[in-house]
Amino acid sequence: MTGNVEIISAGNELLIGKTLNTNAQWLAKRLTVLGSNVRRITTVADNIEEIETAVKEAIDRRPDFLITTGGLGPTFDDKTLEGIAKALNVVLSLNTDALKMIQEKYRAYAKQQGLKEIQLTPARIKMAKLPKGSKPLPNPIGTAPGVQAEYGKVSIIALPGVPPEMEAIFKNSVAPAIREFTGDVTFFEASLGISGLMESELAPIIDKVMRDNSHVYIKSHPKGAERSPQIELHLSTRANDSTIARNHVSRAIIQVTDDIEAKGGKTTRLRTRK
Amino acid sequence: MTGNVEIISAGNELLIGKTLNTNAQWLAKRLTVLGSNVRRITTVADNIEEIETAVKEAIDRRPDFLITTGGLGPTFDDKTLEGIAKALNVVLSLNTDALKMIQEKYRAYAKQQGLKEIQLTPARIKMAKLPKGSKPLPNPIGTAPGVQAEYGKVSIIALPGVPPEMEAIFKNSVAPAIREFTGDVTFFEASLGISGLMESELAPIIDKVMRDNSHVYIKSHPKGAERSPQIELHLSTRANDSTIARNHVSRAIIQVTDDIEAKGGKTTRLRTRK
Repeated sequence: MTGNVEIISAGNELLIGKTLNTNAQWLAKRLTVLGSNVRRITTVADNIEEIETAVKEAIDRRPDFLITTGGLGPTFDDKTLEGIAKALNVVLSLNTDALKMIQEKYRAYAKQQGLKEIQLTPARIKMAKLPKGSKPLPNPIGTAPGVQAEYGKVSIIALPGVPPEMEAIFKNSVAPAIREFTGDVTFFEASLGISGLMESELAPIIDKVMRDNSHVYIKSHPKGAERSPQIELHLSTRANDSTIARNHVSRAIIQVTDDIEAKGGKTTRLRTRK
Repeated sequence: MTGNVEIISAGNELLIGKTLNTNAQWLAKRLTVLGSNVRRITTVADNIEEIETAVKEAIDRRPDFLITTGGLGPTFDDKTLEGIAKALNVVLSLNTDALKMIQEKYRAYAKQQGLKEIQLTPARIKMAKLPKGSKPLPNPIGTAPGVQAEYGKVSIIALPGVPPEMEAIFKNSVAPAIREFTGDVTFFEASLGISGLMESELAPIIDKVMRDNSHVYIKSHPKGAERSPQIELHLSTRANDSTIARNHVSRAIIQVTDDIEAKGGKTTRLRTRK
C-alpha cells in the first residue's frame, strides 16, 4: 500500500533563507523510493503555535506518517515537541527511556573529555521531555533522541534538524516502519534529454502518451528558457512489482521517443539519481 | 511595516526529492533582506485541488503577499493558475496583455530560428489564460508571464518554476512592491563561531542574552554532533533604521561573547552571506 506522508520542517533559518532545506529533499527522496507518497512539505518558524497549527492541519489530512525535522535540541528555540504535544492535546512529560539515552550520551562525552561527570542541567533534561504516550528513537550520532507518537492512524515522527542525526535515526528507526507499511510498492523513474523541440511543442505529445499510459506520470523540466530547446523529460510510476513498474515506464519511453523524433526532436537517455 | 509573506511551491519533482527547493530559499533570503517576514513555505503537488487548498489556507492566514512558484508553463501539469483561480472563486480567462507578451516572444523565437512564424497552439495560448481580474508580469527571460492578483488585502503573485525566469520577474516586478510595502525596515544579522562549549551549555547563555536584548533573535546551529563543540550562533534583528539594527546586534554580540568566554568557550566572528 502506498503510504501518504507529510513533512514539516521547523526552523527560522529556513524562513530567512539562511539554510537550504536539504533535509526535506533527503527525506522526500528516500520516502519515495520506499514506496510512499509525499503529499506536502511545510516549513514553519521555531514557534510553538506555528508548529502546533501545522501539525494539527497535517493530522486533519490523515497522512499515514507525519515526519517533522528540527527543534529537538537543548535550547529555548527547540520547540517542536511542545508544539506536537499541544497539537495532540497531551502534556510534555519526562520519559525515562529518553532520559536514560541522554544520560548515557553525557556519560560517554564525560569519559571522552576526561571529566568525572557532565551534570544533567535543565537544558539537557529538556530533551527527555516528550509528548505523553510517545517513545524515543535512539540517536546513534547526537544527543537528542527522535520521537514517535501515534494519533489515531497517523504515526508522528519527530527527527532532529542536524542532517547526519536526522539521517541516522531515519535509517535505523523510520525507514523499516515505512517499508513495512508500503510492502512491495516500488517507485521507478527514468529521464530523457530532449533537444530541438520547445516545451510548448512537447505539451501535446506528453498529453497523448500519458493518456495511453495511465500508470506513468510524465513531467517536462525546461533547462534554460523556452526558446532554447533543452528539456528533461522525467517519467515515473509506482507498482507492486519492480518489473511491472520498469515495463510501464519503458513502454511510455518508446512511445514518447517515437513521437518526439517524428516531430524533429532528438532524445538521449539520461542517468537518473540513485 | 514588516510585510508577512507566504511562499507556495508547486511541483511533483520537489515532493519526490528529485529537485532541491532552491527557489524557496532564494525568495526567502531576498524577502527577508527587503524587510518582510516569511511566515510559511508550503510545497504541494502539480494538482489543481492541492494548489487550490494551499492557496485558500494561506489567504485565510492574511499574509500581505502570497508568492507561488512553478506551474505556469504550457504543459498539462502546469496547473497553478487554475488552482489560484479556484481558490479566488474566479474563472480563467484569456488576458489580452498576457497574450500580446506571449505573441511577441514567439515572434522573436521565429525570427531567431529563421521561421516565418510560430503558431499560437492551445498549449501556448494556455499561458495567457489568467485568473479573471489579475495582471501579467513581464518575463524578460522566458515565455510564461508571471501573474499578480489581489484578493482583499492579500497580493498573490505567481512566478514560474524555472529559476532564472522566477528571479528575473521577482527583481523587476515583485521586489519594488515589497520594498514599497516594508518601507525602511531593515534586517541585520551576524554570526559567531563557537568552540569549546556544548550546545546544552550555551542554552542558558542564549536565554539570558535574549532576555536582555529583546529585539535580537539568537539561534544556535550545531555543526556536527552535540559532543563536538562546533556551533554557529546566528543573531538577527529587524528595525526601521539600519544603524539601530546594527547596534542592537552588536550589543548582543558583546554580551554573548563575554558570557561564552567566561565559561571557557572561544568565539570567532563569521562572515554572513550577502
